[in-house]
Amino acid sequence: MSDNQDLQKSFLETVKFDEKGLVPAIVQDHETGKVLMMAWMNRESLEMTLERKQACYWSRSRQKLWLKGESSGNMQDVHDILIDCDGDTILLKVSQKGGACHVGYHSCFYRKAKDDLSMEICDTLMFDPEEVYGKKS
Amino acid sequence: MSDNQDLQKSFLETVKFDEKGLVPAIVQDHETGKVLMMAWMNRESLEMTLERKQACYWSRSRQKLWLKGESSGNMQDVHDILIDCDGDTILLKVSQKGGACHVGYHSCFYRKAKDDLSMEICDTLMFDPEEVYGKKS
Repeated sequence: MSDNQDLQKSFLETVKFDEKGLVPAIVQDHETGKVLMMAWMNRESLEMTLERKQACYWSRSRQKLWLKGESSGNMQDVHDILIDCDGDTILLKVSQKGGACHVGYHSCFYRKAKDDLSMEICDTLMFDPEEVYGKKS
Repeated sequence: MSDNQDLQKSFLETVKFDEKGLVPAIVQDHETGKVLMMAWMNRESLEMTLERKQACYWSRSRQKLWLKGESSGNMQDVHDILIDCDGDTILLKVSQKGGACHVGYHSCFYRKAKDDLSMEICDTLMFDPEEVYGKKS
């Protein structure tokens, strides 16, 4: 595969959505390189993200478009969008306002495996989810 | 969700495999934070990865266990394994020998979108795939 062949298509033509019409998007802080979360995009949310330069996903649990930060205010300004060799995974480099994780941490990857396969917290709590999303009944 | 409740389960119990028995694994250079690739793991490949501290995946195209680097020599030594809030995505922090991408780049994310949605190369070519994997017929 030559670089020329490789770059003939546009970004949108290169993306391969899966059988559900979705593609996973890895989200990384554009300055520190910290991986913040992974979410899923359909074609509409990807087009919105490219147009607005703010991350927009497809919520699989709510089955609707999800502009990241619409409830919490923790928006993601998009600096770069990359695509992998197979065209089936996207990488967003963003500025994250506040915490990315609905549990309140900066990153959704706030737990790591210890040698005995128990887990420990390895990230910083940024907000109280009950204050941001309201108390669960 | 309190941290105590959150840490009661072991790492393996926390992982939620999808309807195909797979979980996506994001792979990041443990020193630079560069995202190198995303691949999929089944339970067996995750257990092998945890045991050997070398990344092992499930190849969806070949439908078999795939010890990363078994053909190319470009192994991934695993430093840390993290899990996200929903338990359905893994993050590996690794030392990558050579390039991670079968096309020859350091990262599979070697193309980024330009403002006009054409693409440009944004990574370094590390090896010639024909030399490593043999010439395609």
